[in-house]
Amino acid sequence: MGADAIRCAPRLELLALPGLPLVRPGDDLASLIAAGLGRAELALRDGDVVVVASKLVSRAEGRFVDLSTVEPSPRARELAEQTGKDAAHVELVLRESAAVSRVAPGVLIVRHRLGFVVANAGIDLSNAAPPADLAARGRGPWALLLPSDPDRAAQALCAGLGRVAGAAIGVVISDSFGRPFRLGTVGAAVGAAGVPALWDQRGREDLFGRPLEHTITALADQIAAAADLVAGQAAEGRGAVLVRGLHFSAQADAEGGAASIVRPSDEDLYA
Amino acid sequence: MGADAIRCAPRLELLALPGLPLVRPGDDLASLIAAGLGRAELALRDGDVVVVASKLVSRAEGRFVDLSTVEPSPRARELAEQTGKDAAHVELVLRESAAVSRVAPGVLIVRHRLGFVVANAGIDLSNAAPPADLAARGRGPWALLLPSDPDRAAQALCAGLGRVAGAAIGVVISDSFGRPFRLGTVGAAVGAAGVPALWDQRGREDLFGRPLEHTITALADQIAAAADLVAGQAAEGRGAVLVRGLHFSAQADAEGGAASIVRPSDEDLYA
Repeated sequence: MGADAIRCAPRLELLALPGLPLVRPGDDLASLIAAGLGRAELALRDGDVVVVASKLVSRAEGRFVDLSTVEPSPRARELAEQTGKDAAHVELVLRESAAVSRVAPGVLIVRHRLGFVVANAGIDLSNAAPPADLAARGRGPWALLLPSDPDRAAQALCAGLGRVAGAAIGVVISDSFGRPFRLGTVGAAVGAAGVPALWDQRGREDLFGRPLEHTITALADQIAAAADLVAGQAAEGRGAVLVRGLHFSAQADAEGGAASIVRPSDEDLYA
Repeated sequence: MGADAIRCAPRLELLALPGLPLVRPGDDLASLIAAGLGRAELALRDGDVVVVASKLVSRAEGRFVDLSTVEPSPRARELAEQTGKDAAHVELVLRESAAVSRVAPGVLIVRHRLGFVVANAGIDLSNAAPPADLAARGRGPWALLLPSDPDRAAQALCAGLGRVAGAAIGVVISDSFGRPFRLGTVGAAVGAAGVPALWDQRGREDLFGRPLEHTITALADQIAAAADLVAGQAAEGRGAVLVRGLHFSAQADAEGGAASIVRPSDEDLYA
């Protein structure tokens, strides 16, 4: 990507899309979001980015799991005892993970098979109940897994929404991640398309003509964090946010997706 | 803080303040920012948050160090050799740090005396040159340290800007931090006042009435990340950003400041 493919915008606007329904397995998210934009009387423009909570994507993909049907392995039982967590939940976490990173009372941090280092493999028990008809078929409690391939889901949404609007847009699929050294969660990108996940500023200069030091910005993570400020995760249920005013070129290298933000294990000093 | 002290806003606006001059030691930042708001024909309102790049605060505090005057200790020379960094720079990093976290070629991660785990103690060599008259008194190259007490600096700015405007506002002092498991930097709060650094949602319920799991959001970090999307760090020099549309109560517990985001060492599984 050229060093000047993105300019920092002096003004940015974020809008939560109103009236999104509770997403059901098989729903066409692009249509639901397009309808939300319509209700807000918004037409997507070149450079707009739509941030979608990963939960909406997971629900559309039907990534619900009835915990009562999950048989914990001996390893899951052992970790459940160490963490004080439910053994079936831990079993699901292990099935979604490539490696266990840290274990402590109340804490199970893993490297997800998608590469992210995240608590509980991003498997949430909040907002995880399926629609009533589906729920009636199981006993529960229910868990909701991360989307199976969030970068690909972002690409599909990006193509779908962009086609309808006739605009070159970006899509970020976001989740809330904890951090090792800092308390509280922040929005992070688990999927991205049409917008560079990492913005490489190498070659740019500081105010005094000296090459910049912190030269790679996790653009998609910052977009996810910004969107989280308006999205909420509670009863408002505002799972899609329009970000307007970023300036990135559609020609910019947006190929890597959110996977490109994952620090390779061999460069991870805290593995 | 009450669980309902903050509501998620459906709309958020971020504006980079135009025409901020290069800050000089001793400058009154509140006046410079108030003038920038004036140029943009903006009057601060209750609930506005002003995000200020830590570099502006450091410059106003005169936190410039002439590296040619810094005598490296044996420990600094040793770490300089391991990292390939300049020994005087490493010496400064050690003086600003409570502990060394990780060392590798090109990498020196420390626990800053303020608690943040950060590369090079947040000491930057970009945009670190003092004004020409001050620079003429030294040989350089120059380094710029983090503000001496960013939470206190945020309190002073918050009080100063709020008084002028007659409004209850918040201030976040931001920097760019790397992360252990993820590539690229993101904006993070090193100082905060008038806005809760952590937003505790415990007691809130999900869409199905189940208590929320990820209940503590690093609000000030997310605000810093959002502001970084418009601030840039290069030649534009847009070091102050107005964030409008957050809903937090002035009565909310904003006492902790950014220091409250620092995960205590004894809870840090990656120390």
